[in-house]
Amino acid sequence: MSFSPLLQELIQALRCLPGVGQKSAQRMSFQLLERNRTGGLKLAEVLQEALNKIQHCELCRNFSETPLCALCSNEKRDPTQLCIVESPIEVAAIEETQSFNGHYFVLMGKISPLDGIGPKELKLHELEPRLRSSPIQELILAINPTIEGQATCYYLTELARKYQLQVSQIAYGVPFGGELEWVDLPTITHAFKSRQLL
Amino acid sequence: MSFSPLLQELIQALRCLPGVGQKSAQRMSFQLLERNRTGGLKLAEVLQEALNKIQHCELCRNFSETPLCALCSNEKRDPTQLCIVESPIEVAAIEETQSFNGHYFVLMGKISPLDGIGPKELKLHELEPRLRSSPIQELILAINPTIEGQATCYYLTELARKYQLQVSQIAYGVPFGGELEWVDLPTITHAFKSRQLL
Repeated sequence: MSFSPLLQELIQALRCLPGVGQKSAQRMSFQLLERNRTGGLKLAEVLQEALNKIQHCELCRNFSETPLCALCSNEKRDPTQLCIVESPIEVAAIEETQSFNGHYFVLMGKISPLDGIGPKELKLHELEPRLRSSPIQELILAINPTIEGQATCYYLTELARKYQLQVSQIAYGVPFGGELEWVDLPTITHAFKSRQLL
Repeated sequence: MSFSPLLQELIQALRCLPGVGQKSAQRMSFQLLERNRTGGLKLAEVLQEALNKIQHCELCRNFSETPLCALCSNEKRDPTQLCIVESPIEVAAIEETQSFNGHYFVLMGKISPLDGIGPKELKLHELEPRLRSSPIQELILAINPTIEGQATCYYLTELARKYQLQVSQIAYGVPFGGELEWVDLPTITHAFKSRQLL
């Protein structure tokens, strides 16, 4: 290789980013070295600070550098609705729609017995105190429709029943702008089964 | 936005990388936070060190953390051949083929009058002492075949003539594995003009 040892190390280090292979890492290194050393140094600094300081919110487990995240400590949010999602990225997606004003609980994974991930591994017991004592009335499951997601939904439904809570699930079906021709078969099958009278 | 301020800052900082938009930066941040904090911290450290220490080789101008790069200080390389390329990425590409054993000179750009980049901006005078005194016999131009590249080649050819050096240019034409049907017209035109008798 004709790269200097330090440059090689940089290229290697950049490959820890998802979707970045050898060629992209090379391009990134050269771009930073040739055109944007300031931006690169800023990135190094923020990266260090973020990875050292960002932990999980004590209540919802979303990423947060404060013990309680901004959503959990926002008193304007509806405390009677709790939306359960798999990961922080889904909180971001739902928040962007501005269609939900309750609180969240982030599973940070999903139940997958084949991978040895059960309720214990997801620390779902952390959810129970909230279901027991807080003013939650409805549990909304916004879990991705996969086999593991369904197992997770099943477990959470049982849990909610134990505390006499209403449980709902976001609607699955043909997406807006989707064309039936291109939608996968399980989705169409589900859309037919879950058809609604007009 | 439902991201914590520090997480937003991280997402923003990651966008300084080429080809990384909002969505990729989000994915990268989550991946590092959820699964690879060690790798991320290592990246921050290497990034800082590399951007602070890597400069240009005094002789060939390739990236190097030492005053002379490994290629320039390698006495096994042929000192009679000097290959001129636009940027360090091309040195890497040529070295990978192991088809050239001489020295390099990296332009770090190309002559582009429309962008106000001339020989002065590329500091091409740094090349002249080498042409004058060193044992170089052949100048090999490995410049990308663009309009600006051609202008650059023209200038370098004149320069080489001034010092009575042999100048050559790498071959341009239909690439191996390429199909004529998909090769662009200027390349085919050039390939016909430069056809060789068998």
